Amino acid sequence: MSAVEKDIFRKAAILSDEVRKPFPNSRKIFVAGSDGLRVPMREISLTPTRSRAGLEANAPVTVYDTSGPYTDPEAHIDLTRGLPALRAPWIEARGDSESLKGPSSIHGRIRAADGVTAHLRFAHTRPPRRAKAGVNVTQMHYARRGIITPEMEFVAVRENARLDELREEYERAGYLKRRHRGQAFGAHLPEVVTPEFVRQEVASGRAIIPANINHPELEPMIIGRNFRVKINANIGNSAVTSGIAEEVEKMVWAIRWGADTVMDLSTGKHIHETREWIIRNAPVPIGTVPIYQALEKVGGRAEELTWEIFRDTLIEQAEQGVDYFTIHAGVLLRYIPLTANRVTGIVSRGGSIMAKWCLAHHKENFLYTHFEEICEIMKAYDVSFSLGDGLRPGCIADANDEAQFAELKTLGELTQIAWKHDVQVMIEGPGHVPMQLIQANMDEQLRHCFEAPFYTLGPLTTDIAPGYDHITSAIGAAQIGWYGTAMLCYVTPKEHLGLPDKEDVRQGIVAYKIAAHAADLAKGHPGAQVRDNALSKARFEFRWEDQFNLSLDPERARSFHDQTLPQEGAKLAHFCSMCGPHFCSMKITEDVRRLAGHAGADTHDAATSRGGDPSALIEQGLAEKAEQFRQQGAEVYQRR
Amino acid sequence: MSAVEKDIFRKAAILSDEVRKPFPNSRKIFVAGSDGLRVPMREISLTPTRSRAGLEANAPVTVYDTSGPYTDPEAHIDLTRGLPALRAPWIEARGDSESLKGPSSIHGRIRAADGVTAHLRFAHTRPPRRAKAGVNVTQMHYARRGIITPEMEFVAVRENARLDELREEYERAGYLKRRHRGQAFGAHLPEVVTPEFVRQEVASGRAIIPANINHPELEPMIIGRNFRVKINANIGNSAVTSGIAEEVEKMVWAIRWGADTVMDLSTGKHIHETREWIIRNAPVPIGTVPIYQALEKVGGRAEELTWEIFRDTLIEQAEQGVDYFTIHAGVLLRYIPLTANRVTGIVSRGGSIMAKWCLAHHKENFLYTHFEEICEIMKAYDVSFSLGDGLRPGCIADANDEAQFAELKTLGELTQIAWKHDVQVMIEGPGHVPMQLIQANMDEQLRHCFEAPFYTLGPLTTDIAPGYDHITSAIGAAQIGWYGTAMLCYVTPKEHLGLPDKEDVRQGIVAYKIAAHAADLAKGHPGAQVRDNALSKARFEFRWEDQFNLSLDPERARSFHDQTLPQEGAKLAHFCSMCGPHFCSMKITEDVRRLAGHAGADTHDAATSRGGDPSALIEQGLAEKAEQFRQQGAEVYQRR
Repeated sequence: MSAVEKDIFRKAAILSDEVRKPFPNSRKIFVAGSDGLRVPMREISLTPTRSRAGLEANAPVTVYDTSGPYTDPEAHIDLTRGLPALRAPWIEARGDSESLKGPSSIHGRIRAADGVTAHLRFAHTRPPRRAKAGVNVTQMHYARRGIITPEMEFVAVRENARLDELREEYERAGYLKRRHRGQAFGAHLPEVVTPEFVRQEVASGRAIIPANINHPELEPMIIGRNFRVKINANIGNSAVTSGIAEEVEKMVWAIRWGADTVMDLSTGKHIHETREWIIRNAPVPIGTVPIYQALEKVGGRAEELTWEIFRDTLIEQAEQGVDYFTIHAGVLLRYIPLTANRVTGIVSRGGSIMAKWCLAHHKENFLYTHFEEICEIMKAYDVSFSLGDGLRPGCIADANDEAQFAELKTLGELTQIAWKHDVQVMIEGPGHVPMQLIQANMDEQLRHCFEAPFYTLGPLTTDIAPGYDHITSAIGAAQIGWYGTAMLCYVTPKEHLGLPDKEDVRQGIVAYKIAAHAADLAKGHPGAQVRDNALSKARFEFRWEDQFNLSLDPERARSFHDQTLPQEGAKLAHFCSMCGPHFCSMKITEDVRRLAGHAGADTHDAATSRGGDPSALIEQGLAEKAEQFRQQGAEVYQRR
Repeated sequence: MSAVEKDIFRKAAILSDEVRKPFPNSRKIFVAGSDGLRVPMREISLTPTRSRAGLEANAPVTVYDTSGPYTDPEAHIDLTRGLPALRAPWIEARGDSESLKGPSSIHGRIRAADGVTAHLRFAHTRPPRRAKAGVNVTQMHYARRGIITPEMEFVAVRENARLDELREEYERAGYLKRRHRGQAFGAHLPEVVTPEFVRQEVASGRAIIPANINHPELEPMIIGRNFRVKINANIGNSAVTSGIAEEVEKMVWAIRWGADTVMDLSTGKHIHETREWIIRNAPVPIGTVPIYQALEKVGGRAEELTWEIFRDTLIEQAEQGVDYFTIHAGVLLRYIPLTANRVTGIVSRGGSIMAKWCLAHHKENFLYTHFEEICEIMKAYDVSFSLGDGLRPGCIADANDEAQFAELKTLGELTQIAWKHDVQVMIEGPGHVPMQLIQANMDEQLRHCFEAPFYTLGPLTTDIAPGYDHITSAIGAAQIGWYGTAMLCYVTPKEHLGLPDKEDVRQGIVAYKIAAHAADLAKGHPGAQVRDNALSKARFEFRWEDQFNLSLDPERARSFHDQTLPQEGAKLAHFCSMCGPHFCSMKITEDVRRLAGHAGADTHDAATSRGGDPSALIEQGLAEKAEQFRQQGAEVYQRR
């Protein structure tokens, strides 16, 4: 073991403080389900409102939490041991899978026996599990048989984020005030998500719960347009840069900021070992693109790929616990000429690999011809399909072209084959699309893919801003999320230019949390506006700390405030640096309310705390004065 | 004069190198109009495409340029003298205005005679101009009388960005390839903008050309939904921070990145002097909110404001050359109670100042009662109205409420009064609006304000991301721009938290250039896709330098690339750091094209350069091979 390699290993086992520290004024809570089910969430405590009537408490806000045990100061984290196997008893209790003696893939066995990489290897692997012969262990299979699994109950509890339980408290606190009617484009968001609703959605194929039986560390989540919009973050080393330690740290960093799933797109050295470290420590579903590793196995020569090598790769990764695979089975030989006149040809890596293979052999895509065999593997571990859009447009000019939509129809055909096997499916979508063409993407996907969840990369709404593509694409992502896309794959500021560092990952994720949340609001998700209202109330009442703590990125919000007004006292001030004390509209509005309210209704807050309706009180006061005004012959009221 | 004050003055006169350096591979060009009219634009030169057939030139791309003479290395800049008075001969030639002996406002005279601030004063002021008695000097007035002014011709040439002249060259270069049909929501974007079209739009009130006769340094621009979507950047010192030097530098910085207009929202010391420096050096229209300065004059006590003080402030600023005024004349006494039950009350500074005044006096808003007198002032200098939305929503909960729409209807009523005086008008809009409620804002505005241009702040599509509100709002801005908003007021990452520094201004502007451009694409602006296509072609051909240089922020794009691959050779490489050489989809697509093309059609580029149709060649090659494939009994083609 070289000194460099030892160093890689040592670093892999230690997370930096910044990815582990709890969010300010937040605590990890666990909401109980049946049979000891405990669903983690984050509760944000708020400070009281100060009014003339005294202090008035503000109800804490519970938010959906993707960060796993890492933000829980109570949790003992040992990366070399991995996270607790939360799902292990559920999987075992079903009695339909068995523990193997060791990896059944050839490559898995080679890696396990390889002395050269032994020091890089995750030490505490369990033997892989696989469905018993002839048995199907997918969540869809259970759902279709009427079984509500613990995974389904977990996601039901999780999706609600305690809205059911806290509704009255939130009402009183004003967090449900003026909840706007959504425009849902055919989505149906229930007021309360029940386990039975989850089961129905999974059974119908409208939602998936990516949950490989070899990833028992997973905190289950659901992807479907009748649930909260989710986001994915990509990590992964390439041949050019980045190591194991960095990738594990990036995964924990990504879920801290809100990634609901993480794709490991590694293409460099030690793919197998890196993936093992990531999965054992990941509380979120991990997705991969197996063709990348298959290509590594043939030295990067696409034409040397074979079904056997690919098949072995699927099994290798399924037995490590990958939750969903991107499979570019829709890139058919006859579609390739349709890309020839494009401005940017084929921009999907997987798509271009398969296109090259097809042309080199003058044969149909082996992922397509072997699709039923792939389904057999998927259902033995419950790996979900993410049917790749290998022919997605790579620029505005190529959006919504024949190649793209031809492939989409094939993905619909494959969806039905997968569903015949009760294998879960989502469909990948573009890419680069100008705004006026986005809705057609959603409509075509729903139609041709029978409402299977859509999972899009952006889309980027213009090509002219490299360096800012988290923004060009957040614009498109918010829209397509609103129209019905279930999961949004993030784009970082480094897209098209370089590999993202931690700051880029954070920027990309927050941009996508914004897009997903804006989409939830627009669809009319029953609980989405709670956080907006709570934060805006804090803002109006100059509760600076609460405003920071309710935000998607409390550290950034606080540091931006402190750049202008670093004094601790400024966080109690009833004004901010933008306008100063004379010009603060919020402060003046306080004065307005005081001036307008008569008979002791000095402030809005005071009025509210006594149960009075400030609007009515102000109306009354104004009515008297307006009467005087009219008597003076003022004419302004006559205009109405 | 204290040392500190001397230092302020000295700094005000010197711009940093970073705001003056020309964009890479770009040159300032001047497109000739009639009578010696010269319209500045930026031409970006590109490198040739390398193919087996040799080098093939790529046509340069001409882009709309807001940066004024600052990016022209030929221009001599002396901040103490201001920019050349480009419009002075046009204004004089009209013979309808006269040069005054000095400022006619009381405050203007006091400032001019104040020894204490003499050292801060811009030295080379001209005497102000004003319309001759009883004459109207607005662009709208000329337009309605059938006169095409040099300002109108200037904006016509500018809007075209040479598309008329370069159309064939662009066609050949592929920059007009697959230009998508837009969805324009009732906007009508002509293929070529003629001076007569500009005149008609200004005459109808659908567009404005903010162009005070006291701002002859201005390069005229137009705001209307049948033209390119524009953006505004706010600068301005506050009582808490920031000085003259910083504000002038920020203005030049803002137009460098693409601000079409700049609002000076200063509220601190030396407002008058700061504004003079900004206007004398600004090639873009400058907007202000005069009530801010009026409030300063009464020591920050809203209730002490009077019509006389406000009127004097309007004249003071009009004679300095402010091009548009935000006037909160729609905040009526009877609307104020409608805000009492809001989560965040009144968030517009101007709106809250007027509300406080109204309530303190139990009188109608003096901006409303004196509106016709304001029109008289506006038309004597050609200051445009930006009718302020003082009751705009400050959070998601308050969006589209009764207060907001009541005020909007009053703004429509005021629009008709202004138009009676041939005074140009645009209407300000929100604010904070969830996506599903955005379109109603545009529809209501068009209906109630008779298609006067809409000018919105964002809107922010969620409240939960302080620190990232350039993104929450770029999402809404892109949408409302698409629906028909003519100008988008930027939001920086510091919104709600602190005062923006230069990096924040850059981030905010680029986010809004993206939103405006995405809107242009979606509306189907005839020239918008040229830059996207040229950049994407460069990207596909690994012309890294061209990709950087065509982007909105070439420096950032280059520096992001170089963070991962700093070697100069990497900018010639046919792969990048994201995937490395084996995995680059663009490289594989080159291979695909080579494999697919037979009979010497080795590459797409080679085929294209010989005039061949690569698609046809590939089809032909595939047809032969597919026949072999079918003869082997493959069944995949039978599925069609």
